[in-house]
Amino acid sequence: MSERPGREYETLLADLTDRVLTVTLHRPDRLNACTPRMTADLLAVLDRADREDEVRAVIVTGAGRAFCAGADVSAGGGSFDHREAGAAHRDVGGLVALRLYACTKPVIAAINGPAVGVGASMTLPMDIRLASTEARFGFVFARRGIVPESASSWFLPRAVGMQRAMEWVATGRLFGAGEAHAAGLVLSVHEPDDLLPAARVIAGEIAANTAPVSVALARQMMWRMLGEPHPMKAHRLDSRIMSQLGGGPDPTEGIESFLAKRPPDFPGRVSSDMPPIYPWWDEEDFRPLDEDR
Amino acid sequence: MSERPGREYETLLADLTDRVLTVTLHRPDRLNACTPRMTADLLAVLDRADREDEVRAVIVTGAGRAFCAGADVSAGGGSFDHREAGAAHRDVGGLVALRLYACTKPVIAAINGPAVGVGASMTLPMDIRLASTEARFGFVFARRGIVPESASSWFLPRAVGMQRAMEWVATGRLFGAGEAHAAGLVLSVHEPDDLLPAARVIAGEIAANTAPVSVALARQMMWRMLGEPHPMKAHRLDSRIMSQLGGGPDPTEGIESFLAKRPPDFPGRVSSDMPPIYPWWDEEDFRPLDEDR
Amino acid sequence: MSERPGREYETLLADLTDRVLTVTLHRPDRLNACTPRMTADLLAVLDRADREDEVRAVIVTGAGRAFCAGADVSAGGGSFDHREAGAAHRDVGGLVALRLYACTKPVIAAINGPAVGVGASMTLPMDIRLASTEARFGFVFARRGIVPESASSWFLPRAVGMQRAMEWVATGRLFGAGEAHAAGLVLSVHEPDDLLPAARVIAGEIAANTAPVSVALARQMMWRMLGEPHPMKAHRLDSRIMSQLGGGPDPTEGIESFLAKRPPDFPGRVSSDMPPIYPWWDEEDFRPLDEDR
Repeated sequence: MSERPGREYETLLADLTDRVLTVTLHRPDRLNACTPRMTADLLAVLDRADREDEVRAVIVTGAGRAFCAGADVSAGGGSFDHREAGAAHRDVGGLVALRLYACTKPVIAAINGPAVGVGASMTLPMDIRLASTEARFGFVFARRGIVPESASSWFLPRAVGMQRAMEWVATGRLFGAGEAHAAGLVLSVHEPDDLLPAARVIAGEIAANTAPVSVALARQMMWRMLGEPHPMKAHRLDSRIMSQLGGGPDPTEGIESFLAKRPPDFPGRVSSDMPPIYPWWDEEDFRPLDEDR
Repeated sequence: MSERPGREYETLLADLTDRVLTVTLHRPDRLNACTPRMTADLLAVLDRADREDEVRAVIVTGAGRAFCAGADVSAGGGSFDHREAGAAHRDVGGLVALRLYACTKPVIAAINGPAVGVGASMTLPMDIRLASTEARFGFVFARRGIVPESASSWFLPRAVGMQRAMEWVATGRLFGAGEAHAAGLVLSVHEPDDLLPAARVIAGEIAANTAPVSVALARQMMWRMLGEPHPMKAHRLDSRIMSQLGGGPDPTEGIESFLAKRPPDFPGRVSSDMPPIYPWWDEEDFRPLDEDR
Repeated sequence: MSERPGREYETLLADLTDRVLTVTLHRPDRLNACTPRMTADLLAVLDRADREDEVRAVIVTGAGRAFCAGADVSAGGGSFDHREAGAAHRDVGGLVALRLYACTKPVIAAINGPAVGVGASMTLPMDIRLASTEARFGFVFARRGIVPESASSWFLPRAVGMQRAMEWVATGRLFGAGEAHAAGLVLSVHEPDDLLPAARVIAGEIAANTAPVSVALARQMMWRMLGEPHPMKAHRLDSRIMSQLGGGPDPTEGIESFLAKRPPDFPGRVSSDMPPIYPWWDEEDFRPLDEDR
């Protein structure tokens, strides 16, 4: 997906500083409610994050007082009517979720305010979630007569366990940052002014200390191994990657900098230096669920 | 499974009030120890819960001072001798566990006292567990020379992680409500008199605010997605359900009540209005494990 | 794998007392850094643990001030160069991880000091981890230009969730016992002098109270069921094991000792009395990952 010149995205801002790409959802007058345009912009900015070696980590936050208030339902009661598309319909939140899942750079959500519906579920395939004390969460789907989307039925129980996931989804109630933290949904809670700095500390630690190729591989290894029934698959993968990577410049620099007690300077780039085994999976294709039956 | 007239169940009480079905294990003189009759009664009352649209949530608790003291072993040392049935033997606790897993209504355990053996494992496929300060737990199977049953080897590590599960199962020791809460086994701990009211608050929130069809679908989506290796399966399912459901009366009411800031009144019923794609799975059939080999 | 006479292992000590086998990683002048010899010794001592019925539980700890400082990289920048082996290369940490996974006795890590790299990842397939206040942890792979090994991409997210796993792995930073405990990586934290006694309390409780055959089965049931998509598989397994085991001497003793309120004395032995259905799986074989494609 190509970017447009000038102001690249209609619904978000993207700023690359110190090797961290900060993406700000930017429809502040609508509490950053999600539209098809925002979905397309998110897909495009994630493509950029993957393409540019200068991007070591991504932070996603919201402009104004909300993170994202959910799907834009200003069109009224028919907002979720996708009958025309029939079996070909694809949940747009899921496109973003699957794109995040496939990312080669770590993604950190800096949740500055309300994150409701797709605004909450879109953060689940992000690797790390930090919350402001002003954050509010709601998996409100059953209050709107719909179901969890953005593949959140897959991601949410894996993030917080089935018990808490079911209680949040079956009641659809809103809850605050403290409860989100206690449940493990967010890694930490911060005063509003400290939220982005805290996200930048983590992103900066990634950028300064670790090899981009290692991080890209590790991110995919951990997400993909979550779906493997037996640790043998991980052992086979570890073995193959280490035989292809272990004698190369990154491990040499890693060990030498460690023994010399100096910061590492890894030469490997995600754009050109991933080992031949990557990707080791056949990507899952979309097909309407009916076709299984 | 049909119900009998009059006092419907021999070993439990069932009370439907305010759209919440409260099931009370009722052999108080035997600490509600589980018998084949109690298993049959539980299967029957769960069938009722699924069948009646008036039931929006189920609470399971115990009469007297125990929740359930485990399998009734008053027959003595041969209580677990199922050799006569041979390969056709089916663990009765597992029948209840799988029935709970398949339920379309959320189930809340209100654990009022000792929950030991099958009394503990039967709560794992319930969605939410609340404990009284008087609750005690024990996965005591290895102290009785048997193994975790009711499919608890599948449910327990998913509920509390492998480390805690293994420590509880390998030692077989009893532990209290505080430890259960710290481990995430129970969602919250309450004074004895506050336990049922707390369960009713959650059940009431479900009944008042969310669409029954949405809750039934979300419950099955989350349990079933726990077994899927890749989030694409969830995305395919979200997409299909939304194309079948999104233009219908429940989402219309959900959005309109939200925009009007009034409580929703969802017309959809589990008995008649589940989308055509439901159920989207081929149910697993029982066959003796030997047949795999 | 046979043991050698006299001092059995070059790089570790093994002491069997009160039916608990304590294994001490023993290269204290090298912070117990892991070598191919240590890997072989670990495989051998785990074979012993499985073979001897007198061993009811295993404790693994480190000599001196470290638990294990990671792979021995004293050979310099080429330490991870396995290109010569090509596709046949097998990650040695993974051999230990898979051997731990297959163990019939519970394994408790008593982490007395720094556990870094393979020193951290080797503890993940152990069942229970206890930490001294002096423990430090680091999943430092990306700081060395390599990737998580010992199948830790499979084990770590299952132990602490994806969010915390990704933050630890992507930053590669060191962290202390308190953080490890808060994340659920370790079960409890102890003063240095209390660490081994605490591990022995758990091991002793296993040895005193539970049936060895039950514990061996339960350990494999829980690890293996983690990879099964549907609880029906657990129900089929429960049913088969109970039909083969339930009428035997261990359950009889378990019930009779319980009814008589006396300690149990289980006759069943892992070496001779596992039920016919065990093992119920076809073990996964190693083959280079390329062969899948």
